[in-house]
Formats: sequence, C-alpha cells, structure tokens
Amino acid sequence: MSDGEGRRSRRGGGRAARQAARSAASEMEQSSFLTAQLRPYEIISDEGLSLIEENADTILEQVGMEIVDDPVALEIFRRGGADVDGTRVRFPRGMCRELISQHAPPSFTQLARNRARSVEIGGANLVFAPVYGPPFVRDLEGGRRYADLTDFQNLVKLTYLSSNLHHSGGTVCEPVDVPVDTRHLDMLYSHIRYSDKPFMGSVTHPDRASDSVEMARILFGSETVDQNVVLLSLANANSPMSWDSAMLGAARVYAEAGQAVILAPFILAGAMSPVTPAATATQTLAEAMCGMAFCQLVRPGAPVVFGSFASSMSMQSGAPTFGTPEPALVLFTVAALARRLGVPFRSGGALTASKVADAQAAYESAMTLYPTLLAGTNFVLHAAGWLEGGLVAGYEKFVLDEDQLGAAAALLRGVDLSENGLGLDAIVETGPGRHFLGSSHTYANFTSAFWRSRVAHNDSFEQWRDEGEKDATVRANAIWKERLRTYEPPHLDESIDEQLRRFMALRSAEISDA
Amino acid sequence: MSDGEGRRSRRGGGRAARQAARSAASEMEQSSFLTAQLRPYEIISDEGLSLIEENADTILEQVGMEIVDDPVALEIFRRGGADVDGTRVRFPRGMCRELISQHAPPSFTQLARNRARSVEIGGANLVFAPVYGPPFVRDLEGGRRYADLTDFQNLVKLTYLSSNLHHSGGTVCEPVDVPVDTRHLDMLYSHIRYSDKPFMGSVTHPDRASDSVEMARILFGSETVDQNVVLLSLANANSPMSWDSAMLGAARVYAEAGQAVILAPFILAGAMSPVTPAATATQTLAEAMCGMAFCQLVRPGAPVVFGSFASSMSMQSGAPTFGTPEPALVLFTVAALARRLGVPFRSGGALTASKVADAQAAYESAMTLYPTLLAGTNFVLHAAGWLEGGLVAGYEKFVLDEDQLGAAAALLRGVDLSENGLGLDAIVETGPGRHFLGSSHTYANFTSAFWRSRVAHNDSFEQWRDEGEKDATVRANAIWKERLRTYEPPHLDESIDEQLRRFMALRSAEISDA
Repeated sequence: MSDGEGRRSRRGGGRAARQAARSAASEMEQSSFLTAQLRPYEIISDEGLSLIEENADTILEQVGMEIVDDPVALEIFRRGGADVDGTRVRFPRGMCRELISQHAPPSFTQLARNRARSVEIGGANLVFAPVYGPPFVRDLEGGRRYADLTDFQNLVKLTYLSSNLHHSGGTVCEPVDVPVDTRHLDMLYSHIRYSDKPFMGSVTHPDRASDSVEMARILFGSETVDQNVVLLSLANANSPMSWDSAMLGAARVYAEAGQAVILAPFILAGAMSPVTPAATATQTLAEAMCGMAFCQLVRPGAPVVFGSFASSMSMQSGAPTFGTPEPALVLFTVAALARRLGVPFRSGGALTASKVADAQAAYESAMTLYPTLLAGTNFVLHAAGWLEGGLVAGYEKFVLDEDQLGAAAALLRGVDLSENGLGLDAIVETGPGRHFLGSSHTYANFTSAFWRSRVAHNDSFEQWRDEGEKDATVRANAIWKERLRTYEPPHLDESIDEQLRRFMALRSAEISDA
Repeated sequence: MSDGEGRRSRRGGGRAARQAARSAASEMEQSSFLTAQLRPYEIISDEGLSLIEENADTILEQVGMEIVDDPVALEIFRRGGADVDGTRVRFPRGMCRELISQHAPPSFTQLARNRARSVEIGGANLVFAPVYGPPFVRDLEGGRRYADLTDFQNLVKLTYLSSNLHHSGGTVCEPVDVPVDTRHLDMLYSHIRYSDKPFMGSVTHPDRASDSVEMARILFGSETVDQNVVLLSLANANSPMSWDSAMLGAARVYAEAGQAVILAPFILAGAMSPVTPAATATQTLAEAMCGMAFCQLVRPGAPVVFGSFASSMSMQSGAPTFGTPEPALVLFTVAALARRLGVPFRSGGALTASKVADAQAAYESAMTLYPTLLAGTNFVLHAAGWLEGGLVAGYEKFVLDEDQLGAAAALLRGVDLSENGLGLDAIVETGPGRHFLGSSHTYANFTSAFWRSRVAHNDSFEQWRDEGEKDATVRANAIWKERLRTYEPPHLDESIDEQLRRFMALRSAEISDA
C-alpha cells in the first residue's frame, strides 16, 4: 500500500507494452476512480515520523480527549481499556494504534448503486468528491445567495456528469429552503435520485445517521448493506482534543452497521492547534486515532478513514487562509502517518479564501490540490466548487476545479517507459530540423497524447478577442449551464423510489411529531 | 548535491534549536536565493533513468546534431573527437557526458553588483527570475500592447523591489521602441541601472554577447569578470536536434569569458519531439548535452546549466498548451537526469496560455510552478509575469506570481522537527477545548508562523463587498502601481555609469556604420 505502485502496472517494452499502454490509458479515463502510478512524496524521515507518533501517544496518555455529552461513548472507551475520568478519556500508550492496526481494513470498496461506479478507498487509489458544507452558492449571474434544494440537486447532477469526480459527496451545499430537521432526508434522496455514484450519510445526529442507513437498506437491500460499505460519512473532531455526541453518536451508528467513517480533525492552525506544522500533524494524529479507535471498539474491523483538514490563519485578523504552504506540509506529513498506521487517508481539495473564481481562487486551490495528489491521498472532499473558506459553493469554480482533476489523473499516471513511451524510433526516424506531426508515433498516440482541458482557451489572442474576450469564469459559466441542459437522470427502480418516498414521509411525520 | 539537504540544517531539539529555527527562518526570508530543505521528488527509478540516458547516447551517436551555419563550432566539435559529416555532428557514446561530468562545475556563484544579492546556482539552491522574451505587455487599464523600454524598465524595477525574485533576468520584455540592432545595450543598461540583482546577457548574436561581457567588465572590473561568473545567459536549441550559429556563437563568447550559459532545448512536444514524456525527456537530454559539451570543448570548466523548456500542444489546433500534466512529468524526469549529470538545472516557471490573469492563468501557472519546486530545479526563468504562451508580460500577472514565490520559499523550508516545531508542550499545556491564540508557543512563533500573501483577500465577504468586490487582478493592479511609485534606484557609481554610457554610444555608432 505504501509504495504507491498501482495494480495496473504498465511498464515493459515492445508491442505488448504498446498495447498495454494504450489500454491502460483508456481504462484509466473510464475508471470510476484513479490508481496512482506515482509513489507518494515523502518529506519526513522515518525517525521524524516516529517522533511525531511518540508525541501523539503522549497527548493521548497525558492529556487525553474530552468526550462531550456522550455517556455511551465514555462507557465504550472505559470497557475498551481507556482511563475515563469524568468526561476526560486518557489512553495507555499504543492502545489506539493497536486497535486500528489490528482491526481497521487498509482499504475497502464503497459500492455505488451503479456497480461500475463503485470506488476503492485506500492503497494507491484516489477518489474525488465535491465540496461539502457551504450554506451559500455563487454563480456569475445570480451572485452570492443562500443555497436551496435546487442548487443541491444541480451540484449532484454536475458531479454525476463529471468523469473526473468519482463520488457524489454529502452536503454539497446546505439547502436552507427545506426544514433543518428533515433536510438530511432530502439530501440523501437527491444523491440517490439524481446520481448513481457513491454518496455520504448524515452525521449531524445519530438518528440522522440511522435514517441514512435505512435509506441505504431500501436502495441496496439489507443484505448488501450488511455485507458491504455503501455509505462513507464524515465525523469531525472538535479540535483541540474534543469529540462531541453528535459526531461520535453518528460514527457509532455507522460502525455498528459496518459502514465507513472518516474521522477528521478540522484544524485552523494557530487557533485550534499550535502554529507549527509538526505540532498540527501531531495533534491531528492523536485526535484522529481516538476517533478511529472508537469505531474499532464499537465494531472491530469497522472501515475507517484517517481524515485531516488543516488550514492556516492570518495572525493579524484571525481569518482562515487557504492554499498556503504550511497546511501543505501538514498534509504531506499526515498522509505519511496514515500510511504507517495502515488506513486510508482523506485530505485536501481545491480550497480557497477567495470570494470569486479568480486568480486567487485558482492559485490557492492548486496549491492545495497539488500536495493532495502527491501526498498519496485516497479520498478528497472539496475537490470541486469550494469558495470563500467553504462558505460558498461556486458553480463556475466547480467547473474550473473539475477540469483540473482530469489533469490530476494524467499526472498520476506517471511516465510511460515502454518502448512506445520512450519513442526512440520516432526520434531516430524524424531526425534534426523536421517536425513530428506526421510521424507514425504521433499518429499512433494522437488521441491519448495530452490531457485536454475543457475550460482553457489555448487559441490565439485574435481568436479570443473575436470571441468576446471571455475569461475562464465566463467560459465556465457557459459550461455548467450547458451540462445541466443535457442532464438526464440515471434509471432508478420505480418501486425503490416509492419505498424511499414512503420512508421519508413516515420519518418526516415522526420528526415533526417529536 | 542530489540529496536536497541544504547547508543550513536546523533540526535538533531544545532551546538552541528554537533559536536556530528562528534565525534560519529570518535568514531565509532575507536570503538572496532559496535553499530547499525538502528533497527533490523522484518519479522514475534509477533503471528508468539509465534507459533514457542510453537512448540519448544512441541519438547523439546515430542521429547526431545539425550544426547550422557555424563552421567554427563544427571545427571545435571535430577537434574534440566528434564525427563531423558536413553540418551533421555525431558523438561517440559517452563523449558528451564525460566532458560535462569531468569539467562542468556542479554549482557556481553568480555575482551581483550588490554582493549581498549574489546567487548560488546549483545544489539544493533555487533562484527565481522573471518572464523572458515577450514582445507584448498587458495591464488592466492599458490592455495588450507592444512593449517599450519603459515597460522593460518597469519590470526590472518591480523585480528589484521583489523579495521573492532573486535575479533580474534578461529580456523581461522586448522593448520594440528601440532599434533592434542596439536593443541589447539598452536592455543590459536597464538591468544595471535600475537594479542591483544579477542579470543575463544577450544571446541573439555573438557580437551582442561580446557587448554584454564588455559592459559587465565596466560594471564589475575586468579582473572580477575573469575570475567570477557575472553573467548567466540563455542559449536555446532549435529542436529537434539542431543548434544554430547565433546561439552557439553567443555560448562560445560566454564560455571563453568563463561566463555561465543555460543550454536549453525549447520543445513543443508533439511538434518538436514525440508526444510522450519519456521521449521528450530523452531528446532534451541529448540536445542539452550537446550544448553543454560544446561549452566544455570551448573552455573546460565553463559553468553551464542544463535547461529544459517543454510544453504540450493541442492535437486539434496545434496551439501550445501550458500547465498540463505531461510537461510536469518531463520536468520531474529531466531534473533527475540533470542531478545524475552533476550540473545545475533550469526549468519551469509560472506558465500559461491564458490571455489575462484569470483562473486559467493561475491554475496553469501553479500546475507548472509546483513541479518546478518539487523537482529540485535550481534556476527558474518565467517565474513571474508570463501570459499568453510567453507572448505577453502581464503586470498584474507579475504581482500574482511573485506573491506565490514567497509561498514557495515557505514550502521548501519543510517541516521543522525541533522541539519548538513539534510543539508538544503547547498542546499539553493548552489541553482540550481551549484555543491556542494566547499560548506562549503561539506568541513566540507569531511573526514567522505562516506565510502571508500580499494579494489574497482573506477577510469576510462583507468586508470584501464593502471594499468594492475587487478580484485578485484588480488588487494586483493597485499593488504594482504602488510599488513603482515607491521605487528608488540603487546607487550606481557615477563614473561607471558614465563609462557604460560612453561604451553604448560608441557601439551604437559602430553598429549603425556597419
């Protein structure tokens, strides 16, 4: 897992290699997830990583974690061998690591209702999901406004239509026009109805997690849910060193059902952790280990993902900042820690503090996305559409980011060293001073030669001027509108749809009575 | 050299480490160049690199290089042991590599007239220089227009004012308002007069290279020029596998004077090399080795830099494309080849095909800049200001790029694993549920904690709206104008200035008489 070599090796020489290279390239393009041929970039020595691990154990042992309003979780920790003192839980050195290493799977498959879109989380694999959580949306004409259910469904549809996004995500925006108590039902139904890609469950209350599992049972069948991962959900720590009952409660529901949970400290370094990258990585490790160990105590073998979200802050204003170098260093570090722990890793995305899809947005997003790719991340939330520190889902930003994810796929394919890749014959045949456009090698590799952006304008200045001097955001605006125009929902069995609607009506009634 | 460990190691523990960390951080910020603490990212095995090297030798042996209109160069190659057949020069296997490995220095210092701004080219060091070559400029008010000498001087001034750009560069734009025959004199004088950073010489004709050396002699004194590198100049191959008399002639002048030359294949893959990254890297190696070996034949020990500029192209329109993944793979590969050859490496930059400083520009620039940083590049031309495939120097783009170079410095510093960096005490002291803003660790690291962008807007939406909804380009516009307003030229000795002007007048007269 840690060597980053995918299963689909395509090195070698000769004609077979040429064919293999071609089929691997086309397979990759149609794949429901990516498999990196590039090894992760390691920026810290084994000794350095051991030092961080020792310190994380010291935190777990001496400081421990505050478990807020959750006597059930406290009891689970106590029975598991932790030292529970009021709401504070301290762990013997090595306890959390042992639970995770011994029980948590190094990778797992999350089924999609369209099985061709199932994803493999872990190893050298990489899965991209859209933005998560914003209460606002922005598009070029409408500007910034509260998100509604139509926006939610639009983002699900755009994700469904993207060959570069593998996962439908979760709260792609907060549909504030539907009641908060039943919103999770509307969101889940939207993922199920308008996409056939894998999706996430609700984590804002244990009951909502149960509803998520129930809807998954209707969609996939109970037996399938019992035997497979069909939900991947996101539980955030309350950094520093706190977990609350909503998140642990939801995690418990999912772990009991054998469903996957991302245990993710969400850290604004400087406020919620020390300002230095090594300290932030250490605290992240301690907090995430506590969460992952909890899931193993609930059900040994429960699939978990080591999550990390770290951003920096402006020390003048306290504002969160994104796309800065220090969180990239944290990302590389924590990815390596996850590999050593033997669990899948989630981090990164196309993050920015910018209010609009301008040069700041793209620069900051790229400065998070590139380390995300090279660190060996397995699951990437916020891979498309994030604006304004996560407060806004941007339609044009979504298109711009999604386009770059296609480039990521080509990058992670690495350098083809087959006879065809090395291309020596082509160079010898063409010779000095002539061009390669007519060479048989170019002809043979024409279609797969270079990644092609769907947003970039590469033609001449004159052409661009005559087309109306449209910048990337204006072009992206036309693209998402055109995509939504062509959208057609994937088939959903009529009786399943009916059962889902019945369940939602029932639960809505129960919830409003409560 | 190849292990990427800088000289300024700052690992360890305890109080001394804390002090060291602080002083290293501030030294880095004030340094005239960067020294990476991060190792280069290697994406190809030693066996793979050997394969590429073997193939490059096959190209040099079987195909050879076309040496156009340069009987002197042909004679130098012949005497050096190459097989010269008309204008075609073929090399015995290993000949070029041996010349370079035995004679070319692994790194060298380029003096600046302000010695505090001298740069070290090679090893774990990184030097950023602005855009090179564009005939047009663009700014928000003036739009796109032909560049003039004022633009040239503005870009030199902005580079001088930047703490993130270490080198004044060369043809920062083409000042088309001054006569082409004497333009090189105006450009050189502008670098000397308006900056005190190191700069590049002319390569468009051997006479212009001689003029560059002469002006350097006036500025630095002949003895200093004889004993030091004071000029670093860019000689491009005519890919595929051709070198012309202008470039080789200029390279000869510089090598004879002991001045440094970047030997750089400029390759639009698909047209000037095969479409595959490994083939493009192989051809780049063959072409660059021919150029670097030539300099060693002219003067053994002449400082050379292995240059590579590779872009992809649209296979539909033939338009060059930038910031795509395949050139990034070439960059990582060629950087590793340069390390094995034992010479400094130049590549990368903030490249884009975009016409304006929009999201396309920033995304594409970042997607070249990030691999540039992690590949272990030593000298980066086009690090700021490049637009429209190099046809345009953009003022706002310059500011946006230059800002990101500051982030690069923080990234390359890597993770501080000193006691202060690990920050365990801070975590233990603060404990669960409390914030770190008031901790003594935060206080001690307050000023150097996070890299700070000068362009990004990180404050609230409301604040941004009330300030006029300015996007990054609009903010960058205000920044470059403010910087030029505050610009003050560095002191230049009156008598040197007079000598320079006299030399230029003399040469102008000679040139117009010729």
